[in-house]
Amino acid sequence: MNATRSRFLDHCRQGLDTLRAEGRYREFARLEREADRFPVYRHEGRDVIVWSSNDYLGMGRHPSVIAAGQEALAAHGAGAGGTRNISGTSPLIAALEEELATLHGMEAALLFGSGYVANQAAISTILTSLPGFHVFSDAKNHASMIAGMRGLPGVTRHIFRHNDVAHLEALLASVPADAPKLIAFESVYSMDGDVAPIGAICDLAERFGAMTYLDEVHAVGLYGETGGGISERDGLAHRLDLIEGTLAKGFGVVGGYVAARAEVVDHIRSNASGLIFTTALPPATVASALASVRHVKGDGALRGRLAAQARLLKAKLDAAGIARLPSESHIVPVLVGEAEACRAVARRLLAEFAIYATPINYPTVPRGGERLRLCATPFHAEAMMDALVVALRSVLPRAALSRAA
Amino acid sequence: MNATRSRFLDHCRQGLDTLRAEGRYREFARLEREADRFPVYRHEGRDVIVWSSNDYLGMGRHPSVIAAGQEALAAHGAGAGGTRNISGTSPLIAALEEELATLHGMEAALLFGSGYVANQAAISTILTSLPGFHVFSDAKNHASMIAGMRGLPGVTRHIFRHNDVAHLEALLASVPADAPKLIAFESVYSMDGDVAPIGAICDLAERFGAMTYLDEVHAVGLYGETGGGISERDGLAHRLDLIEGTLAKGFGVVGGYVAARAEVVDHIRSNASGLIFTTALPPATVASALASVRHVKGDGALRGRLAAQARLLKAKLDAAGIARLPSESHIVPVLVGEAEACRAVARRLLAEFAIYATPINYPTVPRGGERLRLCATPFHAEAMMDALVVALRSVLPRAALSRAA
Repeated sequence: MNATRSRFLDHCRQGLDTLRAEGRYREFARLEREADRFPVYRHEGRDVIVWSSNDYLGMGRHPSVIAAGQEALAAHGAGAGGTRNISGTSPLIAALEEELATLHGMEAALLFGSGYVANQAAISTILTSLPGFHVFSDAKNHASMIAGMRGLPGVTRHIFRHNDVAHLEALLASVPADAPKLIAFESVYSMDGDVAPIGAICDLAERFGAMTYLDEVHAVGLYGETGGGISERDGLAHRLDLIEGTLAKGFGVVGGYVAARAEVVDHIRSNASGLIFTTALPPATVASALASVRHVKGDGALRGRLAAQARLLKAKLDAAGIARLPSESHIVPVLVGEAEACRAVARRLLAEFAIYATPINYPTVPRGGERLRLCATPFHAEAMMDALVVALRSVLPRAALSRAA
Repeated sequence: MNATRSRFLDHCRQGLDTLRAEGRYREFARLEREADRFPVYRHEGRDVIVWSSNDYLGMGRHPSVIAAGQEALAAHGAGAGGTRNISGTSPLIAALEEELATLHGMEAALLFGSGYVANQAAISTILTSLPGFHVFSDAKNHASMIAGMRGLPGVTRHIFRHNDVAHLEALLASVPADAPKLIAFESVYSMDGDVAPIGAICDLAERFGAMTYLDEVHAVGLYGETGGGISERDGLAHRLDLIEGTLAKGFGVVGGYVAARAEVVDHIRSNASGLIFTTALPPATVASALASVRHVKGDGALRGRLAAQARLLKAKLDAAGIARLPSESHIVPVLVGEAEACRAVARRLLAEFAIYATPINYPTVPRGGERLRLCATPFHAEAMMDALVVALRSVLPRAALSRAA
């Protein structure tokens, strides 16, 4: 056993022991999704109701989405066979990119293997394109955006307090007027469910000469007349430089993308390492995603049902005296506030009530912000909600209950 | 138009103009793969033979691989619905990880969205685990490995000349004996097709107390008794700390992985941002990949056909006086040596001979190393090879022909 290996293995073991001691060791539950029965999954031989899926609209189970994937498998095979440049770009991929550009009223869009890669690759490509870039990043931005900002020579990162326009203004005012600037933020924040003041941030961007990059991962498909996200709902898409989205949540498949002006997309396409050196998404994934985007664009009623479900779940939690964060979206966070307690709550929900809700802990949320993050899709029946509320009343620590129900 | 936007758009336009002027602007050809007819694709309304696919064994078209994907779509839907920790880990994913660990004789394996993400996430997680890591990186390592090494505070990167064990030894000797060290290299180098001296590098690793990280992306499925790669073929897998591989090439689908000791995999699983914050691969992708790995493990005859195809193509090129790099693998590079000439060759092959071979240029290969990179899968008929040789004789610049045929 050589010196590096023995030190590294010690480090691994100690780090894992620390995670266990702090109640932060993650066991990945093996959940078997059954398309026909969503949100019922199989877990260790029995049925459980899953409240933690990001397939917000249940599009991953939509018959047209499944059929499109099956047909693409039969017609084109299981893989793309190469990177985008090396025989991996199909007419299907081009069609999906056109559809996504249209969704956001942008000239072009570019598909990546995931939303994580889209953020990391696009942001780092922008920030290294001009010398001395300053990036202004919301304190609750997703890890993938932060990954695109870190470790870049010559780039200065400023973190503004979450959704705090006055703080952003002060930071923008503190850097040289002629320095290139990018403001990077999200529309719906995934762990709190609150929504950014997009218009006010665009105002600041124009006043201080900054570009804007908006992550709509938890909003695309779900908000706006055609599912273009909060920026569509609020009529602000045309004021943004880049909109980033995912095909893995509201659209129920996998993959990420950015939409922007044609030359911006072409620049990222031509320079982003995370795109150039990665095999293109498989035909089935692309075909399913395309079918999903096309369906969701036209199905405003489905968006309406998601909103109604969120209202109903919030009302039931409130009526039962279960404290929740003041989400403005379909995301319903119930705070527990301590890692081990949060895991214990999730463990009891699963063991005693056959309810699966992932305990969310550090580093996904700050320490002290440990929570269950719930979402009622259109497929969660009202009886399931009632059972969830009863179960939560039973297993939540007293501090998480605002009052006796 | 604000100041940053206008400067950035100018930068995009100028950068794209430069790429065009240098013959390096990449148009992604829209190639429609037809599973039944591989390697015949549809391109702008006609049939073309593709010589640039990384689906080396044609597994993406294998009936059992396609059927497994279709069944998973029907049973489980089109997406995983969450990250690995948040309801996205299925029994299928666990089974695939167990299969991949076994393939390399390792205790555990961890699946990522792509080989790029696997390399970037795993290497950066290792290098930031102990203070003062030194990483020794082969000069021809893939961009994804380099992405995992760059911009990390306290990490020193040493680049050794390609496959040059003496240079690696000198660099290892130049750093403090007690500093933690990682040697990162590939088995089959994707653009040259040459093979690393794995045993000699492992010897140095033990002598200098370094860990080893081997990228087998262009070898898994293709070499070794069960397709475990060059490390299996040469009986060296047990001497390596981590083996990284892909499901997108020899296995014909998409996705990447690392295999290692259980605590190393658990450490990466628990800490790698690129894993934690990414939606898991869809059921169909995982099911297809699992079917492919299981089939390829047992199909030594398929590996034999790939090797025979490579020998035959090389012999035909040699007989025709077409200069090629001295590849030791299934990858057959034909050097052109200048970006615009390389593009012109590819353009004429496509227009005049209905043959598709991607021109490979900077930054994928160094300037001056522009080439066509060919691979004869088991599905390329001998008549296709003969037609390729005739076409190359016709379109290659004289300097790329070693002699009159």
